[in-house]
Amino acid sequence: MARESELLSHIYGRSAHLAAAFGSVLVGPGDDCAVVATPRGEQLLLKVDQLIEGRHFEAFPKTPVDLIARKAVARAVSDIAAMGGTPAWALAAATIPHGCPYADELFDAAARWARHWSCPLVGGDIASLGAGQAGPLLLGITIVGTPHAARGPVLRSGARPGDGAYVTGRLGGSFASERHLTFEPRLAEAARLCGALGADLHAMLDLSDGLGRDAARIAAASGVRIELEAALLPRHAGVTDWRGAAGDGEDYELLFTAAAAPPPLGTPVTRIGTVAAGSGCIIVDRGVVHDASNVGWDH
Amino acid sequence: MARESELLSHIYGRSAHLAAAFGSVLVGPGDDCAVVATPRGEQLLLKVDQLIEGRHFEAFPKTPVDLIARKAVARAVSDIAAMGGTPAWALAAATIPHGCPYADELFDAAARWARHWSCPLVGGDIASLGAGQAGPLLLGITIVGTPHAARGPVLRSGARPGDGAYVTGRLGGSFASERHLTFEPRLAEAARLCGALGADLHAMLDLSDGLGRDAARIAAASGVRIELEAALLPRHAGVTDWRGAAGDGEDYELLFTAAAAPPPLGTPVTRIGTVAAGSGCIIVDRGVVHDASNVGWDH
Repeated sequence: MARESELLSHIYGRSAHLAAAFGSVLVGPGDDCAVVATPRGEQLLLKVDQLIEGRHFEAFPKTPVDLIARKAVARAVSDIAAMGGTPAWALAAATIPHGCPYADELFDAAARWARHWSCPLVGGDIASLGAGQAGPLLLGITIVGTPHAARGPVLRSGARPGDGAYVTGRLGGSFASERHLTFEPRLAEAARLCGALGADLHAMLDLSDGLGRDAARIAAASGVRIELEAALLPRHAGVTDWRGAAGDGEDYELLFTAAAAPPPLGTPVTRIGTVAAGSGCIIVDRGVVHDASNVGWDH
Repeated sequence: MARESELLSHIYGRSAHLAAAFGSVLVGPGDDCAVVATPRGEQLLLKVDQLIEGRHFEAFPKTPVDLIARKAVARAVSDIAAMGGTPAWALAAATIPHGCPYADELFDAAARWARHWSCPLVGGDIASLGAGQAGPLLLGITIVGTPHAARGPVLRSGARPGDGAYVTGRLGGSFASERHLTFEPRLAEAARLCGALGADLHAMLDLSDGLGRDAARIAAASGVRIELEAALLPRHAGVTDWRGAAGDGEDYELLFTAAAAPPPLGTPVTRIGTVAAGSGCIIVDRGVVHDASNVGWDH
């Protein structure tokens, strides 16, 4: 599915002028969230994400309605966490198959999960497909958040040579284990990193497309080289190979680079590599160098 | 398609507690936009809306890509206008059929129209349906705006007995004429009404589901009765009957109630009725009383 990456590159390219043309746009498309400034100078994080039946989850009843809603909200919340922010409000847009019997339940569940992560669902749009119109269930979630008051938004572009590269939790096997439906966005961990590391926390994102591809994105955005050690990757039980940890995707763990060691987070944190001068991102497995940008998936 | 209205009522009912539970939520689901307050007290308008191929527009190439994107952005901008606000930033979420050849073009057009209405497209999500997965093109637009600095957000719930009921422009025939693809959101007119009428501008919305249904929504939200005169409805050329003006939908004109006469707006403004004590909304045609809430469509 390289096509979506190409589309996104196209969009980012066309958006490069935005910050220059609109003073209120601090960070446009291409990071986990956009960053904008209100008329009185408050910074906001803006994110939209969508979940598609048959792609991001299996059709009901294989996936319970509650977990469909949970995943849709959690993915967008995770992007707010990736910037070190706090979610504030959510909007939902649902397209539902004709005669879908659980639309009420879906919205109730989305509202419940939005409240759970302290971003009340304040608005939404709902549309039914026509009787003769085939199509999957879609649930799009927009979240508006605020960056960490002291640290400000943590971008992908701040990694510097000499940084350590770190990851929270464990990686791999998210689909097989169904963790992709029940993961906990790393809001508290991100806030703690911002508070403890401050300006030494240089770059961060949440792992959605696999460590390989996502680490390569930090390298590209920051203009640095990232060197990861396959043997250091923390793997979930059942993930037997570094490729699973680096490429399965939908881990929703934080990947960050920092000039100082991170504080205890409650959640395990592992140093998995180093930021160097140069470009590209590699994963070294017993002396063999792999291009990390080829490890992962596009979704 | 009464089902969507029922779903929305369900959602509004479940959301009634939000403002009490979250101090930052000033207006939750049920108005044209949500109104929230930032940590430092700035008010924001939040809106999400989605456009579905085969429902809100005919499939490309019958509808040009530029007009698909235009309508998606314009509908959400119109909701910001309905609150008297100014759009500030936009997000787009697109789901595109497998192999869709104009996805780049669609995003470029959305970005262009977002800039046109001064709400740069700062982020987005794009997903392709799989090769074996049928489904329509979907384009969801989120807009964040700011209310009028002096008047604040104009809600549906402020109409008072004694107000005049007014509408901008002309009504009816939006689909037949394809005006639904090319309408101009009434941003400037709404701002002028806020500036000139101030606190005398009591209630406002943009007409999307037809004057009948939409006027009934102001009556219900405000706890008043609205009495409209069929003969006073300003009709577009070719609209031969008051029912077309009141029920065709997708006019995207402003309907507002005010305690004082509106100023000149550049666009025609017509007084079409009166707000009274009581409940419900009627349209009187040569002495015959029609329930306005039955005139319109659900989309």
